[in-house]
Amino acid sequence: MASAVTYGEGAIVPRRYAGLAFRDIVAPLLGALCALVAAGGAAAADLDSLRPTAAALRDKALASPRAYEITEALTTEVGARPAGSPAMIKAADWAVARLKTLGFDKVWTESFPVAAWERGPESAAVVAPYPQALAVAALGNSVPTPAGGIEAEIAVFATYEALLAAPAGSLAGKIAVVNQPMPRTQGPDGYFATTRIRSGASEAARRGAVAYLVRSLSTGSSRSPHTGGMRYLPDLPRIPAAALGTPDADLLARMAARGRPVRIKLALSSRIREGAETRTVVAEFTGREAPEEIVLIGAHLDSWDLGTGAVDDASGVGLVVDAAKLIAELPQRPRRTIRVALFGAEEIGGSAAAYAARHGPEEQARHIIASEADTGADKVYLAELPAGAASAPFGRMFADLVSPLGIVVSQTAATDGGADLSRLKDVPLALLQQDLTTYFDLHHSADDTFDKVDRHRLAQATAAWTVLTYLVAESDVDFRKGMRTSP
Amino acid sequence: MASAVTYGEGAIVPRRYAGLAFRDIVAPLLGALCALVAAGGAAAADLDSLRPTAAALRDKALASPRAYEITEALTTEVGARPAGSPAMIKAADWAVARLKTLGFDKVWTESFPVAAWERGPESAAVVAPYPQALAVAALGNSVPTPAGGIEAEIAVFATYEALLAAPAGSLAGKIAVVNQPMPRTQGPDGYFATTRIRSGASEAARRGAVAYLVRSLSTGSSRSPHTGGMRYLPDLPRIPAAALGTPDADLLARMAARGRPVRIKLALSSRIREGAETRTVVAEFTGREAPEEIVLIGAHLDSWDLGTGAVDDASGVGLVVDAAKLIAELPQRPRRTIRVALFGAEEIGGSAAAYAARHGPEEQARHIIASEADTGADKVYLAELPAGAASAPFGRMFADLVSPLGIVVSQTAATDGGADLSRLKDVPLALLQQDLTTYFDLHHSADDTFDKVDRHRLAQATAAWTVLTYLVAESDVDFRKGMRTSP
Repeated sequence: MASAVTYGEGAIVPRRYAGLAFRDIVAPLLGALCALVAAGGAAAADLDSLRPTAAALRDKALASPRAYEITEALTTEVGARPAGSPAMIKAADWAVARLKTLGFDKVWTESFPVAAWERGPESAAVVAPYPQALAVAALGNSVPTPAGGIEAEIAVFATYEALLAAPAGSLAGKIAVVNQPMPRTQGPDGYFATTRIRSGASEAARRGAVAYLVRSLSTGSSRSPHTGGMRYLPDLPRIPAAALGTPDADLLARMAARGRPVRIKLALSSRIREGAETRTVVAEFTGREAPEEIVLIGAHLDSWDLGTGAVDDASGVGLVVDAAKLIAELPQRPRRTIRVALFGAEEIGGSAAAYAARHGPEEQARHIIASEADTGADKVYLAELPAGAASAPFGRMFADLVSPLGIVVSQTAATDGGADLSRLKDVPLALLQQDLTTYFDLHHSADDTFDKVDRHRLAQATAAWTVLTYLVAESDVDFRKGMRTSP
Repeated sequence: MASAVTYGEGAIVPRRYAGLAFRDIVAPLLGALCALVAAGGAAAADLDSLRPTAAALRDKALASPRAYEITEALTTEVGARPAGSPAMIKAADWAVARLKTLGFDKVWTESFPVAAWERGPESAAVVAPYPQALAVAALGNSVPTPAGGIEAEIAVFATYEALLAAPAGSLAGKIAVVNQPMPRTQGPDGYFATTRIRSGASEAARRGAVAYLVRSLSTGSSRSPHTGGMRYLPDLPRIPAAALGTPDADLLARMAARGRPVRIKLALSSRIREGAETRTVVAEFTGREAPEEIVLIGAHLDSWDLGTGAVDDASGVGLVVDAAKLIAELPQRPRRTIRVALFGAEEIGGSAAAYAARHGPEEQARHIIASEADTGADKVYLAELPAGAASAPFGRMFADLVSPLGIVVSQTAATDGGADLSRLKDVPLALLQQDLTTYFDLHHSADDTFDKVDRHRLAQATAAWTVLTYLVAESDVDFRKGMRTSP
């Protein structure tokens, strides 16, 4: 990445070798060749005619208050909206009304059943030798403790690997505590490297543990625990699992380091409502020439229960709706249909399969591109396009247009488009990566509230999605024709 | 402050005028004169002999882990310790044991009764038109709501002045909400300017309100509410009072701005135990020549209940104990007695009066100086000395010694030595002001935990207190003899 960057209309060369002759003579020829090889039918001339409008849309998006206003409204008027909850139904009604008001050509909902997990009262405290209250939150899908709670000695592990290294039976009757810190990274790497720890209850149970406590997957220092989904492995006891506030995880580690047995009382209550209704809300601006061709931009409407789901993912909802609406405000609808999908069960899973089932292979074959906005409210810094697109005229023009936003286009193709797109088959994906440096201070915690959203940063992300969506919807680019087999 | 600073042995002149001749000839004469006029018996020659040891102590303090270790131990082994609670008694026992282990010559406790306020279960939620949970914490001394809570419409005020401008009866039956933000300031100004808002319940009740909610006095964005003491005015209904997490206060303001009546359900439970025992712990290193002369450095052992009282005020406890101990590790005890007082009811008041009553006028007359460490765990940036001391040889040597720590000596004398010293009569005060820029992100909230303490910053503050304490305890400086009537 550091040594090879796309510059303007030039091909991929280090800047220091990109002399005038190369840029003026060789590069255009090479570019044309790449276009033929890699990106199929979208001729450069066609694309070039879109440039002024795309640039104008970008700048209009930067000044648009709408993404921010939608984020404000969803967090204020609905707040937390767990999949399958009454609040989620309210959120869907809210979204339908909002999208109709904005003049989408079609708005509908797609209901599907989920196993809705509901948190109940919960508490934890050190009983001995240093009695203190602890901040905990049950992880999504955790079983409750027996009524009255569990009291047991803890075994603290500095890393998840240390837990996995514990012999069979070594945790018999104990509460396992994993205190591995999550690193702060700009991309999702820190999170991806640690998410498995959240589902470590079964590995603790395999070694005899009666409950599982995990240091919140958080880069912040707030005492508010960060929840999130967990899964049990088959054929092992299902033990209660909860997240500790990061200061509380450190506290337990310090207590344990003193050498005396540390005993905890843990009480979690929750229930699962099988077959609870949740809803994905879909809205379209119908394409003027190729209405059957779909440009899908999505976000998820559901959230965890502890905060108000502002950066996860009201801001995503706001920005994709704003992007679509900005394009629809042009004098004419774009060639292709722009579809906005606001998914109804991202956090606990379910909306990806529901969407893929509802919109089967024939329709998926008409999805020109799909992109989900689910990385917060900060600026986009990196774009991953479908395979072959980065070096094709489409990608080079896109790079030009978003360069003033501080965005570079990756030479690596998008292979992960977000959880809700994971069940689509052969649909080209785009990933507009937002800066996650502070995102995991808030993610899945009570601190995920509207005040954390910066309107100008969110507008930058909106601008990136607007440019991408417009270029694909107005051109005849077809990423599949030129798709390579490896990214 | 910007135009006149003390430089080395020179008098107070702008640096650009501080030429060699002045510094070498006039300044020493002027300094000697000032010493006679302003600071009594401590001759410059005596002070100069203390310089190498003071500098060595400063550097030893910078490397000392003890303040940090004490902070760790108190927050780990005791945690929250509200005045008058069983945890506070445990904290006092903990402190006595720790101080004896450290070899203090005398260690004792001073019990006194307080009206101990105990938080019970509490909750709040918007009932209509946008049902959402709210993060609240009752303010210390608040009465509870009736069992079952209060449900009422809110009236939101952007500032406390706006509430005070509301006419009589205008809040009848309503819950008053004050959403005035607290500014982030390096010194205590932002807090001092807003603390009266926390005691606004009576003014709301005067206008008919049935409950009072205040935006947390916080500079942070955590949803955790910040509690703190409040007081009722006489002859007005005592209505329940609680702090909202800052995001929740903003949420209510946004809801109210939509124009429809917003209704809240608020349930607070608490009780007051009159005559509950609390304890101030006192320890001394006895002076070798003038044991009756007392150099008092203090901090408070009690804390609010929500966090573990790390920056408020375990770090203060750690640093004054470390400062005293570092001085006691010298080959001989200092001339005067160093007394450490760990107060037992700073947060709800009571320890100032208890100390003043126990150590009456005769003993107070033997207090050479008093200083409390109760401004967190960050670096000291400004020192205020007793009247006249800054420009006297004592102050100028002190300024020299702490200049490498990044500390300047104010030309304004200390008039406020911290809450626990407020009942002392005619005792010279010193204030070593720590940087409060991030302190009010944590103060009085669940987020006040040990992980927020930086050992190197705390060691810098320890070094400042060590130098001050040593210079006063080893010299014969007497601030009273030279005290001016105005600062």
